[in-house]
Amino acid sequence: MITYDELLRPETVAVVGASDDPTRIGGRPLDYLLNRGFQGTVYAVNPNRDTVQGTRSYPTLTDVPGTVAFVIVAVPAPHVIGVVEQAVAKSAKAVLILSSGFAEAGEQGVAWQVKLSEIAWQTGVRIIGPNCLGLINHADKFFPTFTGTVDYLESMDGHIGIASQSGAYGTHMEFVARRKNLGVRSCVTTGNECDLQTAEIIRLFAESDHIHTILAYAESIKDGDLLIEALDIARANRKPVIMMKVGRTDVGAAAASSHTASLAGEDAVIDAILRQYGAYRVRRTEEALDVASACRPRIFPTGSKLGIMTISGGGGVLMADEAVEQGLDVAAMPDDAQAAMKELVPFAGPRNPVDVTAQFINNFGLITDFTELMLDRGGYDALVGFWTTVANNPKRAEDLITSIRKVLDGREETLFVQALIAPEDVVNTFEKAGLPCFEDPSRAVAATAAVIAFGRAFSEEPPKPPPVPDPTPLPDGAIGEKAAKDILRDAGLPMVADIVAPTAAAAQDEAESFDAPLAMKIASPDILHKSDAGGVMLGVAKDNVSQAFEQIIANATAYDPDAQIDGVLMSPMIEGGTEVILGGKIDPVFGPIAVVGLGGVFTEVMGDVAFRRAPVSPAMAREMIDELQGVALLKGARGHPAADLDALCQAISALSVFTAAHADSIDSVELNPVRAMADGCVALDALIVKRR
Amino acid sequence: MITYDELLRPETVAVVGASDDPTRIGGRPLDYLLNRGFQGTVYAVNPNRDTVQGTRSYPTLTDVPGTVAFVIVAVPAPHVIGVVEQAVAKSAKAVLILSSGFAEAGEQGVAWQVKLSEIAWQTGVRIIGPNCLGLINHADKFFPTFTGTVDYLESMDGHIGIASQSGAYGTHMEFVARRKNLGVRSCVTTGNECDLQTAEIIRLFAESDHIHTILAYAESIKDGDLLIEALDIARANRKPVIMMKVGRTDVGAAAASSHTASLAGEDAVIDAILRQYGAYRVRRTEEALDVASACRPRIFPTGSKLGIMTISGGGGVLMADEAVEQGLDVAAMPDDAQAAMKELVPFAGPRNPVDVTAQFINNFGLITDFTELMLDRGGYDALVGFWTTVANNPKRAEDLITSIRKVLDGREETLFVQALIAPEDVVNTFEKAGLPCFEDPSRAVAATAAVIAFGRAFSEEPPKPPPVPDPTPLPDGAIGEKAAKDILRDAGLPMVADIVAPTAAAAQDEAESFDAPLAMKIASPDILHKSDAGGVMLGVAKDNVSQAFEQIIANATAYDPDAQIDGVLMSPMIEGGTEVILGGKIDPVFGPIAVVGLGGVFTEVMGDVAFRRAPVSPAMAREMIDELQGVALLKGARGHPAADLDALCQAISALSVFTAAHADSIDSVELNPVRAMADGCVALDALIVKRR
Repeated sequence: MITYDELLRPETVAVVGASDDPTRIGGRPLDYLLNRGFQGTVYAVNPNRDTVQGTRSYPTLTDVPGTVAFVIVAVPAPHVIGVVEQAVAKSAKAVLILSSGFAEAGEQGVAWQVKLSEIAWQTGVRIIGPNCLGLINHADKFFPTFTGTVDYLESMDGHIGIASQSGAYGTHMEFVARRKNLGVRSCVTTGNECDLQTAEIIRLFAESDHIHTILAYAESIKDGDLLIEALDIARANRKPVIMMKVGRTDVGAAAASSHTASLAGEDAVIDAILRQYGAYRVRRTEEALDVASACRPRIFPTGSKLGIMTISGGGGVLMADEAVEQGLDVAAMPDDAQAAMKELVPFAGPRNPVDVTAQFINNFGLITDFTELMLDRGGYDALVGFWTTVANNPKRAEDLITSIRKVLDGREETLFVQALIAPEDVVNTFEKAGLPCFEDPSRAVAATAAVIAFGRAFSEEPPKPPPVPDPTPLPDGAIGEKAAKDILRDAGLPMVADIVAPTAAAAQDEAESFDAPLAMKIASPDILHKSDAGGVMLGVAKDNVSQAFEQIIANATAYDPDAQIDGVLMSPMIEGGTEVILGGKIDPVFGPIAVVGLGGVFTEVMGDVAFRRAPVSPAMAREMIDELQGVALLKGARGHPAADLDALCQAISALSVFTAAHADSIDSVELNPVRAMADGCVALDALIVKRR
Repeated sequence: MITYDELLRPETVAVVGASDDPTRIGGRPLDYLLNRGFQGTVYAVNPNRDTVQGTRSYPTLTDVPGTVAFVIVAVPAPHVIGVVEQAVAKSAKAVLILSSGFAEAGEQGVAWQVKLSEIAWQTGVRIIGPNCLGLINHADKFFPTFTGTVDYLESMDGHIGIASQSGAYGTHMEFVARRKNLGVRSCVTTGNECDLQTAEIIRLFAESDHIHTILAYAESIKDGDLLIEALDIARANRKPVIMMKVGRTDVGAAAASSHTASLAGEDAVIDAILRQYGAYRVRRTEEALDVASACRPRIFPTGSKLGIMTISGGGGVLMADEAVEQGLDVAAMPDDAQAAMKELVPFAGPRNPVDVTAQFINNFGLITDFTELMLDRGGYDALVGFWTTVANNPKRAEDLITSIRKVLDGREETLFVQALIAPEDVVNTFEKAGLPCFEDPSRAVAATAAVIAFGRAFSEEPPKPPPVPDPTPLPDGAIGEKAAKDILRDAGLPMVADIVAPTAAAAQDEAESFDAPLAMKIASPDILHKSDAGGVMLGVAKDNVSQAFEQIIANATAYDPDAQIDGVLMSPMIEGGTEVILGGKIDPVFGPIAVVGLGGVFTEVMGDVAFRRAPVSPAMAREMIDELQGVALLKGARGHPAADLDALCQAISALSVFTAAHADSIDSVELNPVRAMADGCVALDALIVKRR
């Protein structure tokens, strides 16, 4: 792995393709390196000139004296590979390729890019790009980039790291963040990612003391394992990862893949994986920056009880709505504490939202008293305060900060987010006092919810997935229903009893062993859509078994005369319980995924499904169930008896272990339906689709 | 009705309770009236002084010469009624009561407020407040308010009107809007609404040429008819109404009702009504202001085909995601037009999002060409363009505006929204050129979606509800299932055949007339929960009818020995089709409401229900069905046969007419389940709950 210092704080840098014109792709980075306070040694390489921008120019990289830690490549695509090879010879740790004309530009470009990947792989040099906008490191004035946004605004100190696949969007986000005084330290754009991926930048940020908060933008995720590793490290180091993974919708994904030429994984899976590994997914740039802003004090509450303080009743209602929709608990103040507030301000709204009214303007001590009551007696994990335009007056702003800090000092674990309208310098004073500020009260609440999500992820022991045994080899060829059931029964799944009867007489005999009407289905590895083939009869009474057998065989034979027919599969009809679908699938990015859905229409029409990376423990399975929109059904709503959730979680876990064990040999496995009964659960059908 | 001019442009104004101290509630409005350029005549009333703030003071309002059109009341609550009576004698059109101490402050306050309402009702004077923050009219420098926000920032011309129940939040929103240069003209806060309601302010704005766009904030809606009337007028006059109705969640609603002492209607109903009458509901202040900003050019596209132009592929993906989630159609460019773009810029992404790449920086004519291709060949109803920081350079900003306007001039119906980062003066140049600007590209798309929603509402003929006949009187007492079915059958609803058998023998006889197994239910107006009483048996075979009869009667008698038992209700079992719930209910705010839900678990667990104000036509019923999340089921998903939607819509319409006709005598009516079959639909159960 490359480190933060190797990538973003090199001691020697060469610009190959250096231009005398500081607005050109090979000129701008050189200008930045020479004239912005960068402390390392800088070499310019240009065979056609003796000097470039006033500094000596070397004809080739090879001619540069000594080793070169970091090489910037701004030559046309056909010359890039040669330069990279020279960089390797110069013991470079990192090569940044700004040039375009690779995978995004047709066949020849693809070939060159493959070659670049090979060089990186074989030599260990790490390549950033090609076709990227470069890097920005404000703290060390290291700007190997040709984006013009560096020219606007002062740099400022900070601890936010931005990792972006998109150059234009990454530098845009960097600029907007800087404009909002968020304190961006570094920004890395990865472009075509022939070698270094966004996930590795996340990891490198997570491992560096320079970075506290990580903002990532990705259009595609190439290597799920790398991302999960990075997220694990970030969580362990208590670094929030704010993730913008675009291409959520079909149209967006199509736009992303035409733009980056990479396959889009299923968005709902990505969503689940990010949550599972403690990242927080955002949908908009502003949301990303809001969350980063609220993370600045590095206080991550572990509970979701939110106290809302307001001087506008209306604003309080608005914030309460947002908090509930964000899944926070807007619990009421205890009655006696409410009475204490009423004594302080008779017209106060003491419940939560707590309306302190405009009274405090004459006595800021009230803010101290109210804050203390909310923390000591209300027991809130975090507070949000809405002060409309009070802080527009600098004296009042100061009073407000003082009266709040009086309570917070000594309670370093308490986050108090502010919603207020004030001039920039006043806002900065709040921020310096550890009080993050938002103009919009709803956005203040939403950002607080994100910080709380991080707090929970950081405080919880990462769940221990169950061990995955070596896979038992699957039989050759397609796997029929009977075989699938037997395999899964062996894997510990509760399958309905079943028998394959080869003849009508055998079927009639076997029928005696079941004490219910029968489900009868054609047993053939070649017929996947049994209903379409007339191969399914349900609720068959014992008297009619032999007749049903003949009919099913006749239908199936007519449907596909070439199909191998093993007979008819017989099971007892099982009614009742709640219908559930359990599944496993192999995601192209993240590998084995466990799937749970409420049965039938819920899963298929409403998309009410939960995902996790497999394997999952029964406890993790329980979290999946709790995510389902229709979970009330399993807990006993509307006359449905409450299901045996322990049994169901065991089944989910067992199927996820099977999925993980067979990740290389199957595409998917599905139990549909599973009946979740008051006592136990049972799968009535099973399908295993092998990898082709 | 009071007019805009009467409320916001009076010729004579008196301040009763005028204070010499311009920071006090009776001093600030006087200060504003005397020193901010207001052109009307201003009188101060204060019995204890000869002059107030340098102007002559009258001992009482009665002593003021001549008539007074507008009276501001800032005296303590006990004196308010007397002042209002004097105002009436002075022929005042409007009385603004800033004083608090009314309904929000206990019993005596409630009594005083009732008296104020009576005075308004009896004399025709219109009262604003009490307990409000007053009014703001920037155009006429009329600031009868004690909010301090008027002191900050210059006023600016504009055509936005803000109507807010909450004083603090309304003036906050006014201030934030002004800070964003949105062009607020007027702001009215209504406080306790003893007389004038938010809805009436909306109407008065809708009727005035001074106001183009209406922003409304409400915690409760008191009179649904007034609101609907106002929305109808706004829609007819093509005035967007951007509605913030807070208290969406239970916690929020509780906070709102403790704060304003008014009942919260059901939020989903409010949501549906706002949509039905063309208002656009927003959840956050910033969203409200975004939509207002996008409405400024007063261009309201009537189609939802969105063209996205971007110079960042990543930004394009982000915007496409947002557009799809906002329900817009991000249709691709035609192939030949894509080819034309590729000819102009070989590396362009020509599909939609259209990525023009940074090429245009050397040739802004490309923007003209691309815009023209998108409008002429792509046929988009609106465009959104994302320019990152290009317009940070004023020369480039000018080039961008020129190259866009070149296409838009002559296409006055085309909205082109900009997402860009630029200094305030540059943004103002865009805005003056009719190009609304947003910093965040996702917010630009969301605001455009809102403008398109208005465009559709403005362009469609408001739906014609069916006529409502006089109600046929309902029988006395509780209405049993059989009676309910008969009443609704008479009202044109398709009810399952049924018979009440008084004896077991009669039941056995009647069974012969049905050719299916039977559903048998206790017939008793006193037993509402028939299943709980053991009063329901389904799938009874004809042979078992008499035995079932005896059992049901025995169970019911045991359950409630005092219940009146009419016998057992018998219907054929009807299976198949898709289960639907049709209903009607009387909302405390909006009156009769039509309800449609997908049957069973969909309605109850997932909350998948659509509402409209009743009566609805079959066409409106069809819109309700199309709103259901699970609508695919009715259209034939997952083996469900497609339902006869015409029949279903007829039934929804008929039930809504029944609901509207009986709005004074019932609380609710429900058909549950209704089976929507491939041919027709049929209700299996009915419940009419009369108003108590």
